[in-house]
Amino acid sequence: VAQRHADVRLFLVGREEAVRSELQVAGWAGDNIEVVAAEAVIDMGDSPIDALRRKKGSSIEVAARLVKSGRADAVVSAGNTGACVAVGTLCLGLLPEVRRAGIAVTFQPGPRPVVVIDVGANVACKAEHLLQYGIMASLYAREVLGVESPRVGLLNVGEESEKGNSLAKMTNTLFQRTALNFAGNIEGVDVFSGDCDVIVCDGFVGNIVLKVSEGLAERMVDLFQTAVEQAIKGLARKLASPASPEEPDGRVGGLLRDSLGGLREKIDYSEYGGAPLLGVNGVMIIAHGRSDSKAIANAIRAAWRMSELNLNRHIAEEIRAFSGLKETI
Amino acid sequence: VAQRHADVRLFLVGREEAVRSELQVAGWAGDNIEVVAAEAVIDMGDSPIDALRRKKGSSIEVAARLVKSGRADAVVSAGNTGACVAVGTLCLGLLPEVRRAGIAVTFQPGPRPVVVIDVGANVACKAEHLLQYGIMASLYAREVLGVESPRVGLLNVGEESEKGNSLAKMTNTLFQRTALNFAGNIEGVDVFSGDCDVIVCDGFVGNIVLKVSEGLAERMVDLFQTAVEQAIKGLARKLASPASPEEPDGRVGGLLRDSLGGLREKIDYSEYGGAPLLGVNGVMIIAHGRSDSKAIANAIRAAWRMSELNLNRHIAEEIRAFSGLKETI
Repeated sequence: VAQRHADVRLFLVGREEAVRSELQVAGWAGDNIEVVAAEAVIDMGDSPIDALRRKKGSSIEVAARLVKSGRADAVVSAGNTGACVAVGTLCLGLLPEVRRAGIAVTFQPGPRPVVVIDVGANVACKAEHLLQYGIMASLYAREVLGVESPRVGLLNVGEESEKGNSLAKMTNTLFQRTALNFAGNIEGVDVFSGDCDVIVCDGFVGNIVLKVSEGLAERMVDLFQTAVEQAIKGLARKLASPASPEEPDGRVGGLLRDSLGGLREKIDYSEYGGAPLLGVNGVMIIAHGRSDSKAIANAIRAAWRMSELNLNRHIAEEIRAFSGLKETI
Repeated sequence: VAQRHADVRLFLVGREEAVRSELQVAGWAGDNIEVVAAEAVIDMGDSPIDALRRKKGSSIEVAARLVKSGRADAVVSAGNTGACVAVGTLCLGLLPEVRRAGIAVTFQPGPRPVVVIDVGANVACKAEHLLQYGIMASLYAREVLGVESPRVGLLNVGEESEKGNSLAKMTNTLFQRTALNFAGNIEGVDVFSGDCDVIVCDGFVGNIVLKVSEGLAERMVDLFQTAVEQAIKGLARKLASPASPEEPDGRVGGLLRDSLGGLREKIDYSEYGGAPLLGVNGVMIIAHGRSDSKAIANAIRAAWRMSELNLNRHIAEEIRAFSGLKETI
C-alpha cells in the first residue's frame, strides 16, 4: 500500500483475504483503494504460458482485463515477468503495426538516465523488432524521462557498422535509414558510460546484460564493504592515539555505509519506477520481483505518468510513420 | 621486457628499431631475448581481415609463424583481437575436429577462478561450437587452473532447460548428453557468483558481457572513490576532536585506496594471464590491449604453462572422444 495520493485510484488485484489482511496491517482507511479478487496467482517459478493455461483468472490476467475494459488506466506487477509479457501481449494486444512488445529498463549510472530495451520479452528478435524498440524507447526517453533528442545506440561487439552477427548488421542498416538520433553501434563498455540515452539489443542479450550487471554490482558492493571494514579495523589497530579509537571509526563507518546505500541505488533499476512493456495497447509496468514499497510506489507513479502523457498514442503514430521503412529493405 | 626468468627464451616481434630502443630503455643485457623484425604492425583500429591482406608480414603473423615452424612454443599478443583470432585460425590452424576457436577469459570474483568462453572470436555460433567450447574450457580449468571437475554452465535467460533462444535450447540438449560436469543453464546474475567454473556463451553475448562488466566495474570503483572521499571530508568537518583531524583521515584514506586497488584487480582479467585462444594448433594468448608489464608477464607465464602441460594434446583427445555426439543429434 505504497501510494496515498488522493488523485490516484488503485485496484489491488489478488487473493482477496490476503490483500484485505495486508490492508488491515497497513491500517488503510481511505476510499481510493478497491480490492479486486483473483482466483489464482502465478508464482515466480511458474512457466508463463503453462501457468496461464492452468491458472485461469490469475491476478495478472484480472488486472490486465481491468485495463482492457477501460476501468483502469494501467497495470503494475512485480510478479512473473514472462507471465506479464504473455498477458500484456495476448490480453491487451499490440499497438497497430507493432510486431513485438519489449521491456525497457532505466538505469541512472551518471547524471542522465539510460534506457535499455529489450531485457527479456523477446529472445528471438528480428531487425524490424529492434528498430521498433529503438523508436518506442526513444519516445519513452523523450516524453516520460524528459531527454531531448535521445541518442540511440545499438549494442554490438564493435563500433564499425559491419561488426557483429547478422542480426546486428541488418539492424544497423535499418537504423541508419531512420530520422532517429542514431549513434551507431556501441560496445558493452559504453552501456554505463552515459554516451547513449537509449540502448537497443535483443531480449536474450539484454536479459543477460541486466542480470550480469545486477550480479556484478552486488558482488562489488560486498567487496567494497569488506574493504571498508578491513581498512577501519586496520586503522583501529594502528591508531595509538590518546583518544578512544572507537569514536572516529564509528563515524567513518557510518558515513561510508550511508554512501554505499546511495551507490546501490544508482545501479538499482527498481528505483526508477519499474520497466514498461512497450508496444502493448495499454500501460503495463513490470517491477523487479524484490521491489520494496518505495519501488512499487515509483512504478505506480511511472504508470500514472505514461497514461497521463498518452505515450501509446505517440508510439502508434511514430511506428506508423516508420512502417514504410521495412518495405525498402 | 617483463620476463627475466632464465629458463624462458623470448622472441620480441615487431618493428626492429622500436623494439631495440625499448630494450635499451629497459637496460636489457641478457641473452634470452631475441628480436625478430616484422615489416608491419596491425593497429588496434584496423579491420582484421582487411589488415592481414594489406599488411603482409605483420608482427602477429611473424610471431604465429615462429610457433607454426616450431621455433617458438607460444605467441602472446596484446594487439588487435580480431587479427589474433584470424592469424591463429589461418596460420596455426585448428586442432583436429575443432570447428571454431574460442577466447577463454578468466575472472576471479571470489575464491575460485571463473572461465568465460567465448568472448568474441565467434559471433555466429552453432550448438556444436558451444559444446566444443565447454569441453576445451573445462580442460583448461582443470589442467591449467587446477579446478577439479569444473562445473560447466550455459549462459541463458533462465534456468529451465527449455528457456532461451533456439541456439541455447539446442546447446543445452547437447551438453546434457556429455559426461561433462554440466550445471545446466545459468543466468547473468550467476556469472560472478562462483557457482560455475566454466561459463559457455556465444562470442556475441560473451564479448558484450565482458565489456559491460569492465565498464560497470570501472564506473563503480569511481563511485566508491567519490563515496570514500565524501565520507572522509564529512568526517573531517564533524571531527571536533582535540587531535588533528588530518592524521586519521590520511590513514583511513590511504588504507581505503589500497583496498580499492585490490578490488580493481579482482575484476580485472588482465591479472589472470591473458586469454588463451582455445582450439588452435599452437598456444596463443591474447592479452588486454591496455596490459601493463605485470599483465604481460602473467600472460607469458600462462603461455609457458599451457605449452608445458601440453593442453592441446588433451583438447584434441577429448574433442575426438566427443565427436560422435554431433551425429546423434
